[in-house]
Amino acid sequence: MIDDHLVKRFIEVRRYTESICSKLEIEDFVVQPVPEVSPPKWHLAHTTWFLEELIINKFQINYDFHDNVFRKLFNSYYKGLGEHWLQSARGQLSRPTVKEIYTYREIITQKILELMSHQKNNYELEQIIELAINHEEQHIELLYMDIKFILGANPSLPAYDEMILPAIANATSRWEFFSEGLYEIGADSAKNFYYDNEAPKHKIFLRPYAIRTTLVTNGEYLEFIESNGYEIPTLWLSKGLDWVKNNNIKSPLYWFKEDGLWYEFTLHGKQLLDKSAPVTHVSYFEAEAYARWKDLRLPTEGEFEIYSLSKKNLKKTSTFLHPESVNTLDSQLWCWTQSSYSPYPGYRPFAGAVGEYNGKFMCNQFVLKGGCFATPSGHYRNTYRNFYEPHQRWMFSGIVLAKDLI
Amino acid sequence: MIDDHLVKRFIEVRRYTESICSKLEIEDFVVQPVPEVSPPKWHLAHTTWFLEELIINKFQINYDFHDNVFRKLFNSYYKGLGEHWLQSARGQLSRPTVKEIYTYREIITQKILELMSHQKNNYELEQIIELAINHEEQHIELLYMDIKFILGANPSLPAYDEMILPAIANATSRWEFFSEGLYEIGADSAKNFYYDNEAPKHKIFLRPYAIRTTLVTNGEYLEFIESNGYEIPTLWLSKGLDWVKNNNIKSPLYWFKEDGLWYEFTLHGKQLLDKSAPVTHVSYFEAEAYARWKDLRLPTEGEFEIYSLSKKNLKKTSTFLHPESVNTLDSQLWCWTQSSYSPYPGYRPFAGAVGEYNGKFMCNQFVLKGGCFATPSGHYRNTYRNFYEPHQRWMFSGIVLAKDLI
Amino acid sequence: MIDDHLVKRFIEVRRYTESICSKLEIEDFVVQPVPEVSPPKWHLAHTTWFLEELIINKFQINYDFHDNVFRKLFNSYYKGLGEHWLQSARGQLSRPTVKEIYTYREIITQKILELMSHQKNNYELEQIIELAINHEEQHIELLYMDIKFILGANPSLPAYDEMILPAIANATSRWEFFSEGLYEIGADSAKNFYYDNEAPKHKIFLRPYAIRTTLVTNGEYLEFIESNGYEIPTLWLSKGLDWVKNNNIKSPLYWFKEDGLWYEFTLHGKQLLDKSAPVTHVSYFEAEAYARWKDLRLPTEGEFEIYSLSKKNLKKTSTFLHPESVNTLDSQLWCWTQSSYSPYPGYRPFAGAVGEYNGKFMCNQFVLKGGCFATPSGHYRNTYRNFYEPHQRWMFSGIVLAKDLI
Amino acid sequence: MIDDHLVKRFIEVRRYTESICSKLEIEDFVVQPVPEVSPPKWHLAHTTWFLEELIINKFQINYDFHDNVFRKLFNSYYKGLGEHWLQSARGQLSRPTVKEIYTYREIITQKILELMSHQKNNYELEQIIELAINHEEQHIELLYMDIKFILGANPSLPAYDEMILPAIANATSRWEFFSEGLYEIGADSAKNFYYDNEAPKHKIFLRPYAIRTTLVTNGEYLEFIESNGYEIPTLWLSKGLDWVKNNNIKSPLYWFKEDGLWYEFTLHGKQLLDKSAPVTHVSYFEAEAYARWKDLRLPTEGEFEIYSLSKKNLKKTSTFLHPESVNTLDSQLWCWTQSSYSPYPGYRPFAGAVGEYNGKFMCNQFVLKGGCFATPSGHYRNTYRNFYEPHQRWMFSGIVLAKDLI
Repeated sequence: MIDDHLVKRFIEVRRYTESICSKLEIEDFVVQPVPEVSPPKWHLAHTTWFLEELIINKFQINYDFHDNVFRKLFNSYYKGLGEHWLQSARGQLSRPTVKEIYTYREIITQKILELMSHQKNNYELEQIIELAINHEEQHIELLYMDIKFILGANPSLPAYDEMILPAIANATSRWEFFSEGLYEIGADSAKNFYYDNEAPKHKIFLRPYAIRTTLVTNGEYLEFIESNGYEIPTLWLSKGLDWVKNNNIKSPLYWFKEDGLWYEFTLHGKQLLDKSAPVTHVSYFEAEAYARWKDLRLPTEGEFEIYSLSKKNLKKTSTFLHPESVNTLDSQLWCWTQSSYSPYPGYRPFAGAVGEYNGKFMCNQFVLKGGCFATPSGHYRNTYRNFYEPHQRWMFSGIVLAKDLI
Repeated sequence: MIDDHLVKRFIEVRRYTESICSKLEIEDFVVQPVPEVSPPKWHLAHTTWFLEELIINKFQINYDFHDNVFRKLFNSYYKGLGEHWLQSARGQLSRPTVKEIYTYREIITQKILELMSHQKNNYELEQIIELAINHEEQHIELLYMDIKFILGANPSLPAYDEMILPAIANATSRWEFFSEGLYEIGADSAKNFYYDNEAPKHKIFLRPYAIRTTLVTNGEYLEFIESNGYEIPTLWLSKGLDWVKNNNIKSPLYWFKEDGLWYEFTLHGKQLLDKSAPVTHVSYFEAEAYARWKDLRLPTEGEFEIYSLSKKNLKKTSTFLHPESVNTLDSQLWCWTQSSYSPYPGYRPFAGAVGEYNGKFMCNQFVLKGGCFATPSGHYRNTYRNFYEPHQRWMFSGIVLAKDLI
Repeated sequence: MIDDHLVKRFIEVRRYTESICSKLEIEDFVVQPVPEVSPPKWHLAHTTWFLEELIINKFQINYDFHDNVFRKLFNSYYKGLGEHWLQSARGQLSRPTVKEIYTYREIITQKILELMSHQKNNYELEQIIELAINHEEQHIELLYMDIKFILGANPSLPAYDEMILPAIANATSRWEFFSEGLYEIGADSAKNFYYDNEAPKHKIFLRPYAIRTTLVTNGEYLEFIESNGYEIPTLWLSKGLDWVKNNNIKSPLYWFKEDGLWYEFTLHGKQLLDKSAPVTHVSYFEAEAYARWKDLRLPTEGEFEIYSLSKKNLKKTSTFLHPESVNTLDSQLWCWTQSSYSPYPGYRPFAGAVGEYNGKFMCNQFVLKGGCFATPSGHYRNTYRNFYEPHQRWMFSGIVLAKDLI
Repeated sequence: MIDDHLVKRFIEVRRYTESICSKLEIEDFVVQPVPEVSPPKWHLAHTTWFLEELIINKFQINYDFHDNVFRKLFNSYYKGLGEHWLQSARGQLSRPTVKEIYTYREIITQKILELMSHQKNNYELEQIIELAINHEEQHIELLYMDIKFILGANPSLPAYDEMILPAIANATSRWEFFSEGLYEIGADSAKNFYYDNEAPKHKIFLRPYAIRTTLVTNGEYLEFIESNGYEIPTLWLSKGLDWVKNNNIKSPLYWFKEDGLWYEFTLHGKQLLDKSAPVTHVSYFEAEAYARWKDLRLPTEGEFEIYSLSKKNLKKTSTFLHPESVNTLDSQLWCWTQSSYSPYPGYRPFAGAVGEYNGKFMCNQFVLKGGCFATPSGHYRNTYRNFYEPHQRWMFSGIVLAKDLI
């Protein structure tokens, strides 16, 4: 029999996904305002497809799929598993309905539970269930991101959650110093799950550096805007400047000005901009330009990992669906690093179809570290490597600053 | 007091729209698979916005709008009435919900009824109500077109209506001859409603011509396909050939081949292609190329109008949501003409904001005549000028053939 | 033997083309700043290809082509004659060099002269030589258009011709009136050449109308600009407004403002805008919006033809490469009409490969009448139908106004 | 007085550029077949602009520029120096002519020589002259790349140089092994010039690895093609697969098949593919997919640098304008590495306007090491970091293979 704890976690993650969606109107499940944002009903179905395609179909002989059309519709990008629906066309589908997808979810969840109850000490099954749980945890965070974008695309700016956000306390910035030397980063635990891209554990040589312990605040970022930071070409990477010009970027995503006051749209609705809160929904281009404007820089992923390791652990402290503190170790926002998302030395992708999970994206993306308020609790790791393209900013990203000491 | 008949017709058209939508799932109301197809909930709201903006706001002093955001969201393209939401972004909106839109409809319908009951012999109000009824009738046909496209974009190809389509009887083609001379086309009735683009009634000189009394059938069109019509460049207009190549066009919209057999998707679901039924969902480019291949041509709008006038009246005979006959005077399908959509000599747009209704589209479109099975019964007129761009084909278009007699 | 006059005209048109190019630098022959503008060396080669492909290859058995690559490179769009190089990629070719193309021209010109001297009373040859002369005359005008665009794309704004433009005399506007009735337009001469699209001669019925005898001037058009004509949405066709917005159009092509003064680039270099001169390089959208702003309209092609027939003949009076008068019958500028470019009733394309010359472009274009200063003298005809897309304006277009009399 | 050697090198590099262009026709100087390829006349002018803008204007008070329009036209991308002409529009300019640009070159070259002869021990001037020489050396290689593309875009495939390429001797592959440890890479010489992006010298920790001492050959790459490598999705990075599909990539750039035989276009004209020669003009995507197909990988930039340092020095051995050997240390082709182009730890851009030279491109590019046959002799360095986007392949790129030893 499979470990009870795993069964419990599996059930929890499935229910968590559904509970997030329970606050939505049917219409919110369907739209795809931009290609990178998926309709919530697609997430509900895709996390189920993952179970059916990669687990049930593997462990059950002559398995008869729930619906053959779903195999194509809800495959995200696994070329090894056949044709898949075009990502940018997910919002063109009115069918299957939300109800039909919930039925699909329930049937497949039950099949997995049966499978788990019938298999004894099946290490391979445990491994893939563990991966599936982590996969669904990633989609939980994506759901929050996508729901925010979908609601924010409506001129009425409906709140996802009606709770009122508290004001953020002012924080004092402090620099944490690290001396030159060989350090070790990456994952190798025999016990705990990690993605293939976090391994192997390996040595890196760092020069002396410092990291600021607080995230850049809205107030600090506003100074950059008010100093015409977006209009000074020499602050920007070349591609960043093109992005700013072509998209007429003038502030972080979700910011807007009304009658001379700055607001931001949050999952708790429209809010007056809190200057003490950390700035979020910035692209790599913006984070990097801001750091250059301050005559500082972003940390590398190694520097951030050593910093967080030095504190023992990242921890989650938010109770709202918005950052509540500027402390970088409180896992409020994903911190942009200046590291391109590349394979670690000695990197080996997962075996089989899930080999496409991470490795094939190691191109033109940057690493973010630390986790955010929307990350499920079980999903924080010092070794975690999140990654996005440098222009993307619908995820819960923030800015942490670093500097050289020589 | 306003004419009872008008009140009745107003109520009927409002209910008709809603009854069409009653067969949809909530999800079907929301999506916009391509920019030219609008979400059904947008039609429900826009036909209501038309009433609120152009009637209630005009006849009621200091009118307080139902929702100021709706004024922008549901304005289609009336620049004279302020900003409007981008047409291609209608499918990005999850809110207002379908339910909220139905509430909006009901409130505005009632306000109009009140207005009608309180105004005596208000000719201006009658006129604009008449226009609003006709406007909603146009959207009824658009709803059928858009619903078909939205359902057809789902790989599961759900039927809108489960009734089973009958086979079409074979028809014999016949040519109707017309001699050279001065004819009169266009509308000028003092009694019956017509759009500004149908007037004024005016003389045209026609050379001797003939029109074939039956629509081109699927079977006939199949011969064109099987003779490689799509691959013979000299059959096509220059822009038509670009369209064929760039979009890899190989058959009418909704046709597909499975295991060697041709099918078409209809509002009654997937159907084996009926060779005796008229071909539909062809673009002007396809209609024109087909006619050239037959060494014939499309009629001009004047020729078609004289032909239909000679028979007294178009009539509607379909009982299904698909053509049931190939008789061109049975109003099965809109017939492409070779006439560009241009102002009639002496054309004057409607006065006021509705001046944007027709005139500003008189560029790069072609006229279609005759009406189709999805056209509401009150909406047939010999003088009617429908118009689409030459590449469009999601409307219920068909092909009628003409020839010169000298 | 072929008519001596034809030989003489053939030689003249060949030399004319070359004389136009004699003022260019080699570099000017090569570039293609926008897809619709062809490099001058392409015109030199294409007009030669036309002779080689459509005449020499037809009348000479087993003809061995000068260079097989040229058959593809210099075919403009004749699908019936095999593959052709993409129009928008003409400026990607550095080879063949200008010198090689002149050699090609000379060889083919001589071959044609030999052919003409050896064939007696060959009507078919005469016909196609006549067409080739007319074809090259069209390219002469295109050369002026394209050279202007190419030179104007350089920030240094080099003049093509150094002659100084004279000031234009003020002209008085007058309206010419025409009564209702049946008129006849189109070509049918047994003697004189005309394109297939000008035939057959046919009757049209016109309502009473008037045409203004002078072209709209720069001064008049400036009033439209200064009244914010480009910003008033209701003046524009729907597609026209999109074009204005997407391309940030604020004035006719080649106009620019420096230190508060308006200039226009001409083939005689940069000129202070002459308010008495006719406005040129306007699109159909601009011409149509201007007319609407004046509460007038553009004439139909029939109306313009009847007007010019009433004066007997168009005549060419310019001595410069820019309009010198506002008289519409002086053939200063091509006059936009509101007529879509459609087949005349009874239209039959030329037989054979040249059937692609005109007919396949009868879609989404508008007719211009009258000729311009750059049109070769032999190329004026009352029946002539020039045509361009409604957004195009690099040709020498102008605005003539009409109005209804009932 | 400035060092005579520097004067000599300055004169040499200026003459070198011009000698490359001496084999071109005027037409070859003008075209820009794709946005990334600049017209040769632009290179001639831009390398001169660099001298005028960054040296003469700095060291000469109240300097009066040769032509103010050139300041904008020939600024590549230095935002700190004012507006610049759009890169993709360089091929739209017929003026200034090639002759005018040569005059500009000569005048500016002389001004620099005068400046050098009048300044004594001006270290700052020496530094910027050194940079200018290196800058022009980079453009020398770009000229070869761009000339190849421009000539290759003509269907006649003209040779740049008529010399006949020798056959390449077969080579035996060998692996060079490196053990785990701390290594040092990067530049810090007080004596020799290096770009800011090569510094500072810094420590890196490497795991045991091996590098293959020969470049992948055409024959080896052909096996990948013939094994359908381009059609196997799991071999490709996600963005790489999109690139392959969207551009219909089936072989390296310049390869083509005729009558069953593979050819490649070279600067020495069309050549039958030499299977023993190194494959070139491959993108990062292709290099990376090839390595994966072989179950190997590309080296990191650090691994390559340590490998080349172990051999003392890269050396240039080609006498043709095409690779003549597969030995990676013969600097035949730039070797793709798997390293993203990122700042070295402690990176500081050059001061002043030339701070835009390298740093702002550190995004979405990959590093290539080693140099190629077209690189000027003075331009080889073990520390050199060349960089291109992963889809680019018009540079002289090749594939070197690496593997992990644990």
